[in-house]
Amino acid sequence: MDTAPALSNVRIVLARTSHPGNIGAAARAMKTMGFGDLALVGPRYFPDPDATAMAAGAADMLAQAQVHATLDAALADRTMAVGFSARGRDLSHAPMALRQAAPEIVAAMATGRVALVFGNETSGLSNDELLRCQRLAHIPANPAYSSLNLAAAVQVACYELAATSGMHALPASGAPDAATGEDIEGFFAHLESAVHQTGFADPQNPGRFMERMRRLFARSGLERAEVKLLRGMLGAFEKKMRR
Amino acid sequence: MDTAPALSNVRIVLARTSHPGNIGAAARAMKTMGFGDLALVGPRYFPDPDATAMAAGAADMLAQAQVHATLDAALADRTMAVGFSARGRDLSHAPMALRQAAPEIVAAMATGRVALVFGNETSGLSNDELLRCQRLAHIPANPAYSSLNLAAAVQVACYELAATSGMHALPASGAPDAATGEDIEGFFAHLESAVHQTGFADPQNPGRFMERMRRLFARSGLERAEVKLLRGMLGAFEKKMRR
Repeated sequence: MDTAPALSNVRIVLARTSHPGNIGAAARAMKTMGFGDLALVGPRYFPDPDATAMAAGAADMLAQAQVHATLDAALADRTMAVGFSARGRDLSHAPMALRQAAPEIVAAMATGRVALVFGNETSGLSNDELLRCQRLAHIPANPAYSSLNLAAAVQVACYELAATSGMHALPASGAPDAATGEDIEGFFAHLESAVHQTGFADPQNPGRFMERMRRLFARSGLERAEVKLLRGMLGAFEKKMRR
Repeated sequence: MDTAPALSNVRIVLARTSHPGNIGAAARAMKTMGFGDLALVGPRYFPDPDATAMAAGAADMLAQAQVHATLDAALADRTMAVGFSARGRDLSHAPMALRQAAPEIVAAMATGRVALVFGNETSGLSNDELLRCQRLAHIPANPAYSSLNLAAAVQVACYELAATSGMHALPASGAPDAATGEDIEGFFAHLESAVHQTGFADPQNPGRFMERMRRLFARSGLERAEVKLLRGMLGAFEKKMRR
């Protein structure tokens, strides 16, 4: 698969997954964010038609997935393992919110080999599994309903790391041709003169209308083509008014 | 539903959704992040048992969802609508990456009423729908496989806004009791003395071992209870060595 170099240093490890559909959905989630290395530890059913169905266009990820008997085997070549846990402060070491943990994980991705470890759908990672992770992360969620499904958690984790890495940014834009100061002042002068011909002005504060127009168009920004259109419109008003 | 005030100013709008299961999965995704206002525009099938099944513990969101015939109706009371689009630069106005757009959207949530608008699973938002949005956002994704499903996109968007808002942070920790400078220096003195008794030292640079130990424990940090444990262990070595 075509992944950016730093993302290829990240392995997603799914431990003791019960439902094969979740393995497929997680593979799809990973692939959308550009991650290609999937490892399964003691999956209940795999391979499985439900996994393939839920993977949609990411079935290649399932074909390449490594299956391990133990978490130790899946982590053997990793320099940092990040365990994801929805459990709170009862953990051996305190979990960090994913966003706060991301910069350190991204730095580790650049030079080392990182694992993101997700536990069983119902019970999460066991204490024993968590103790094999050097960092714990949690995805902050609604305290009244924190039940992200496994693929949703993988999607969010991969999104956070890709976004923090600045991956998949759109190519530098073929941005529209922005108006210059001269274009814009030409437009405002034209607008003021055209509006002046209508007699439309606040007698208390004749400059106020133009101030507000300047504020509005400063917020919007103007493209050259838009200045041309607006001035065309003003010209049409002026022509009609002269009749 | 119990939502934080700013999050309750956000409506998730799903336009012309084809598969009711996706409506349910999106409702679940929203609720995990603390968002409670769901509007559907011309859904193909709704209500539907597939929607209820996929919503899991978020079926209350479906019961409260508003169904509108037009996008205009869903946006009538909104002060900002953010359209999500996977399409690139062919759009009427250029989309911003979600992460870059998030601070402005979060600011708008604090004082106004915001909509996040998601289009049909296959075709996305139409040009007509996009023109009703004041901002366009996209979720940066793997160029070779950018196919996030609808609920995954809703999950990522809601996560990004909740995280940027600092919502759902864990309560200030019952952090473990950190060791003080005095505790730590007591430990290092004890360690040096105990190791000295073994004769273990680099003859070229006898201070180097302690430097490395200081560096290691600086990285890890030390809790009071850990200092006590480590000194207990050193005491046990010393006792054994004296025999």
